[in-house]
Amino acid sequence: MNMNNPSSEVRSDMISTSKLLLPDLREMIATNNVYDMNEFCSALHPASTAEFLQDLNPEEIWTILHSIETPLRAEIFSYFDRDLQEQIVETCPREEVAELLAETPSDDRVDLLNEVSPEISAEVTSLLPQEDQQDVALLARYDEDQCGAEMSSDFFRLREDMTVGEAVAEISSQTHLIETVYYLYVLDAEGRLAGVVSAKDLLRRINQQDVPISSFMKSAGTLVTVNDTESREEAIEVVKKYDFIALPVVDASGKMLGVITHDDVLDAAVEELVEDAHLSAAVSPLENETYLGANLFLLARKRFTWLAILLFGAITTALILKLFSDVSDRVTWLVAFLPMIVSTGGNSGGQSATLVITALATGEIELSDWKKIAKREIAMGALLGIAMGACGFINALIIHGFDVPVIELLLVPLAVFCVVFCANLTGALLPLLFQKLKLDPALMSNPFVAGISDTLGTFIYMALGAILVARFY
Amino acid sequence: MNMNNPSSEVRSDMISTSKLLLPDLREMIATNNVYDMNEFCSALHPASTAEFLQDLNPEEIWTILHSIETPLRAEIFSYFDRDLQEQIVETCPREEVAELLAETPSDDRVDLLNEVSPEISAEVTSLLPQEDQQDVALLARYDEDQCGAEMSSDFFRLREDMTVGEAVAEISSQTHLIETVYYLYVLDAEGRLAGVVSAKDLLRRINQQDVPISSFMKSAGTLVTVNDTESREEAIEVVKKYDFIALPVVDASGKMLGVITHDDVLDAAVEELVEDAHLSAAVSPLENETYLGANLFLLARKRFTWLAILLFGAITTALILKLFSDVSDRVTWLVAFLPMIVSTGGNSGGQSATLVITALATGEIELSDWKKIAKREIAMGALLGIAMGACGFINALIIHGFDVPVIELLLVPLAVFCVVFCANLTGALLPLLFQKLKLDPALMSNPFVAGISDTLGTFIYMALGAILVARFY
Repeated sequence: MNMNNPSSEVRSDMISTSKLLLPDLREMIATNNVYDMNEFCSALHPASTAEFLQDLNPEEIWTILHSIETPLRAEIFSYFDRDLQEQIVETCPREEVAELLAETPSDDRVDLLNEVSPEISAEVTSLLPQEDQQDVALLARYDEDQCGAEMSSDFFRLREDMTVGEAVAEISSQTHLIETVYYLYVLDAEGRLAGVVSAKDLLRRINQQDVPISSFMKSAGTLVTVNDTESREEAIEVVKKYDFIALPVVDASGKMLGVITHDDVLDAAVEELVEDAHLSAAVSPLENETYLGANLFLLARKRFTWLAILLFGAITTALILKLFSDVSDRVTWLVAFLPMIVSTGGNSGGQSATLVITALATGEIELSDWKKIAKREIAMGALLGIAMGACGFINALIIHGFDVPVIELLLVPLAVFCVVFCANLTGALLPLLFQKLKLDPALMSNPFVAGISDTLGTFIYMALGAILVARFY
Repeated sequence: MNMNNPSSEVRSDMISTSKLLLPDLREMIATNNVYDMNEFCSALHPASTAEFLQDLNPEEIWTILHSIETPLRAEIFSYFDRDLQEQIVETCPREEVAELLAETPSDDRVDLLNEVSPEISAEVTSLLPQEDQQDVALLARYDEDQCGAEMSSDFFRLREDMTVGEAVAEISSQTHLIETVYYLYVLDAEGRLAGVVSAKDLLRRINQQDVPISSFMKSAGTLVTVNDTESREEAIEVVKKYDFIALPVVDASGKMLGVITHDDVLDAAVEELVEDAHLSAAVSPLENETYLGANLFLLARKRFTWLAILLFGAITTALILKLFSDVSDRVTWLVAFLPMIVSTGGNSGGQSATLVITALATGEIELSDWKKIAKREIAMGALLGIAMGACGFINALIIHGFDVPVIELLLVPLAVFCVVFCANLTGALLPLLFQKLKLDPALMSNPFVAGISDTLGTFIYMALGAILVARFY
């Protein structure tokens, strides 16, 4: 750690010894030293405080958080792991939990209430302020992957007919509810989004109190929104493209319901890509679990399902080999190259599948590009096939030496060419087919592409072996 | 498209027919209709305008952009693809390009100047305002993956001794330079970061002009910063954890150099995960290229390198099979199960490798967790091995029927158990070993794990076959 950096001491992620503080914290609790607890909670960034507290049990944490005001308590709470948040909601006094959740961003609040038991969720919800109860009901209507579920209904609302002076007064009255001023949203009488004012726009005109905000707001024509029922992937795409800090969510009638903020988009984008990575190795997504946090048996069951499907699929290779058993009985060296041939097919198919899947996920290509992609991969397959065929020839020489007929030396390179060409094209087109069938393209993952090319490769190699080589034996 | 949504008409990503506008735009150019060009450029969100213009050639685009003021021109320019930006910088008049780049965020400006030829870069840089020239020199010092290269040096600077009134006046004077007010940074006389004021904090106290900002700013203790020489992965982690809109970057002496903004973090996070996905399928990252934009031969060469390494690695399987050729000659049905066994090993190794690699990438686990991970995967391998062994037994029954000795029916399940157990553990531990060796763990990707388990699986299966079965023949 660089001691010259005046603020580096508060980056708790640099301190691997956060457990060193535990005895001190436990002593504060034992001696009920409220002053020190308060000092501790206020001194650091709330995210760092949360990290230090994380190793205590929920009751200890609750005691320490009691030393501070509810807004800071809610902020520290928001940085706890989901598991710990659940435990706190389940074990701490319901009234105090409701008080805390009233200060929690509305999207996180709904996610959390969905995780705990329906009884606790109902009980805590009934203790929330009326307005928040309606909000919980509103957000609970949406599926997890819809924009509505990702949005927060806390945002600054202004009216079209306000002046700069009125807008500033209005902000002061709303500011205790809302953590950050992203943009200020101007709504018409029906609650539809009429325009947007940035904090910068307002600060520049602070000495012109009587100027109407409608004279400088960005209005309808240049506003970008998402619908509440659109998928969150759509929201991620829009935020990536327009670089928004917050994206307004409207319903079908144009009424503004909430905002999706930059931090939720970042988390959602990372989550989507990690899910894709897991799918691409035939692991069902861990959902809200972490790798070390996930239940071993649950994870084993998820992994087993896919492995078993793939194993039973691989029976086709055994059947093909049984079919060609007279060939392999006569030409016993054939089998030596079999794993090499099928794995090369699987690798090239996996490459093209991954390239297509990631390009689909980041929005670079669309289903309608399939012809372009097919042409590209036919050329690519031919290039790779020739180059890999040459390598296959060298491998055949290494194993065989020159003491076999030329035709036999040609079997491996020819098989490598055919297998690479077919597997490459299959790998590129299957994710597109899955997309077309409204299935997740990431499902057409490396193991599945590899499974298909195992079958393909086994058949091509044995058939070529039967045609080219077996007649010499 | 939902016509009830008053702002949906401006989401250009919903309009798949952006080319329909091209004849109109070309007519505007032909008739030199500056009024219509200006209307067109001002009517939509700059990102949408940029998308419509993308299909014109650089000269046409430049003509249309001439109809508007430089700030809007720079904003539309910032949404063009990197390729098009390069073409414009290379082909349009140098003075005008410099004028445009003076308004471009400093991190994007440096990235762009790094892409064009050194002569053009030097010429354009020399035409920039003095301050921007120094800025280009500052940012050019950093490697692409350092925080310094990712930061923008445009941020709001306040002095410690300012009052609310002075701060607001200062903002008005800086506002033409800076697009968005994220936070207002309070610097001491040496340029070190002393505190942060949010736009909200200032707006709340707008009627208390004489209050010093130091009385309500967030000061040193709770500030989180990154160092300019830290890796950008570090910045991504910090922003994900603290939900920052902008993260201050300081040098070793604590002097504030710039900010890394939420949009750059989102792009960087997506880029890192896509790179990992490509590596995990043994494709070298595409760098700044898109899937369809990448040169076919260049991509083929990158893919070929890995495929060839894997193919030559697979020669070990051929050597093992040659070693056991007397076994496979005598027990000819052995080979039928070989592809099934090795692919099952590859799949289970790929699963555990992907889980560990993504958990490392998202910061969930660290190298120091290796013992926990090893224990977990030993248990997981035993569970999966037993379950998959049972499936292997069923597969053996399907192919063999009951007309072989029991010991022969046991070969496949026993081999599946051993292979799954070994491959699963190998897949989980190799990425950690790579991390330890300071190599990218994502390199220890599915194809490599599969390659290693092919060798392992071939050996285990043939050795078990020799011990258990071959003596009956």
